[in-house]
Amino acid sequence: MTFNSALKRRWAASGSLLCVGLDPEPGRYPSPLADDPDRAFAFCRAIVDATAPYACAFKPQIAHFAAQGAEGALERLIAHIHAAHPGIPVILDAKRGDIGSTARHYAAEAFERFHADAVTVNPYLGGDSLAPYLERADRGVVVLCRTSNPGAADLQDLPVAGSDGSIRPLYQRVAEKAARDWNGHGNLALVVGATWPEQLGEVRAIVGGDVPLLVPGIGAQGGDLEAVLKHGLNAERSGLIISSSRAILHAGSGNDFAEAAARAARETRDAINRRR
Amino acid sequence: MTFNSALKRRWAASGSLLCVGLDPEPGRYPSPLADDPDRAFAFCRAIVDATAPYACAFKPQIAHFAAQGAEGALERLIAHIHAAHPGIPVILDAKRGDIGSTARHYAAEAFERFHADAVTVNPYLGGDSLAPYLERADRGVVVLCRTSNPGAADLQDLPVAGSDGSIRPLYQRVAEKAARDWNGHGNLALVVGATWPEQLGEVRAIVGGDVPLLVPGIGAQGGDLEAVLKHGLNAERSGLIISSSRAILHAGSGNDFAEAAARAARETRDAINRRR
Repeated sequence: MTFNSALKRRWAASGSLLCVGLDPEPGRYPSPLADDPDRAFAFCRAIVDATAPYACAFKPQIAHFAAQGAEGALERLIAHIHAAHPGIPVILDAKRGDIGSTARHYAAEAFERFHADAVTVNPYLGGDSLAPYLERADRGVVVLCRTSNPGAADLQDLPVAGSDGSIRPLYQRVAEKAARDWNGHGNLALVVGATWPEQLGEVRAIVGGDVPLLVPGIGAQGGDLEAVLKHGLNAERSGLIISSSRAILHAGSGNDFAEAAARAARETRDAINRRR
Repeated sequence: MTFNSALKRRWAASGSLLCVGLDPEPGRYPSPLADDPDRAFAFCRAIVDATAPYACAFKPQIAHFAAQGAEGALERLIAHIHAAHPGIPVILDAKRGDIGSTARHYAAEAFERFHADAVTVNPYLGGDSLAPYLERADRGVVVLCRTSNPGAADLQDLPVAGSDGSIRPLYQRVAEKAARDWNGHGNLALVVGATWPEQLGEVRAIVGGDVPLLVPGIGAQGGDLEAVLKHGLNAERSGLIISSSRAILHAGSGNDFAEAAARAARETRDAINRRR
């Protein structure tokens, strides 16, 4: 089972394009867990169990664990997702990028150590830096294309001259290379932020309907859901992994935090589906 | 004491531009340590203690620890360097890159958890993604510019049109932005691979003599030392952090591995200094 086929199966089974991001913030744990020494794990496990019915994927963000020295919690969290919610792919959000000999170690970190189904990676070092991930045909490789932050424009929008004289922004060259040169195993996806729905449409036009697009930025970052769906859906009215983290994780802060997260996830799934 | 002033002091005290990269490879440990359960730490500590007299900096590469679940070894290794070899800066080679709210956690990982003096970062997400590191005026931020791998050309050499109609490769635009927009605290450095000495000269011309250039690729990757120095040195015949990992770490594989590493480091330092 490849990542892309697992994702397609999960999109169909769940009727959801919502990806729940798992970014535990020190100081923002709900009150019942504030003094739990294992709160990174306990919090994320509760969120996972409450939101699983509404999720097409889970996306733990590794820095939120690493800053606290909580890699062990992340290992147990991903193992819990696989055991308790089989069929829901786990995307490790790590945005790694290094030369090939080092990238092999990052691939081992994501796939062997943490048992992620997919990992996010940075394309700045080029195709050979992505090969150690892409060679893993059974795993997904989610390449940054047009990110959701304001500073994305600094490099990603720079006008790049093509050999045919055309000028296109850098993120579109990344999308072209991704679709044409890097996707030999059909296991590539791209990150395009919800804050740039027109760019999402440009990328969809370049890569076609089969490349999943991971779309962060609809919650706290303010992306426009209607425009995301209009520009990002493929012909099957699917193909998107729409990620929300903070708006779900921090929907409640008291004893009912998990129920509040479930409600926020269900409402987001439904808000997406009403516009599909 | 800022990273750049600590680096200048160490360049002067050691008479060396050599940075020793610490990239422990499973399966390549010297025979006396093959069965040591704490071999990532024991190996790197022995390398550090043997090569310190010839090093202007140490550069542990985090994936080589993370793939083995050895973050604890990396913590102890950096603590050992600070305690046993004060004054030698530690550059954590992590090449992180994410939106600001997540970058704060990566900065905490590098500076609070691991106590690194500097960290390598990826510029693809733009200036706001680098701000959480750059705001730490006491720490160094080493931004990828032109990397040492063949695939670097895929994105970094793409011709970018400027507002004045000029066309320059992307890596030069990164160097321009770094020097002009991102270096308000004077704590920025750039990575330029030794495999591209002419590009190193272009970058030096853009950023001036005060921005340190971290130069990987002289050992196993085959960069030309003579050309690196010709193009990369500043007016003080300094300004370079020339990194070698595998050629030093694996200079010997038996009981004398640390002495062999020291010899390789001394010879590399001397080879650099003969050409300065």
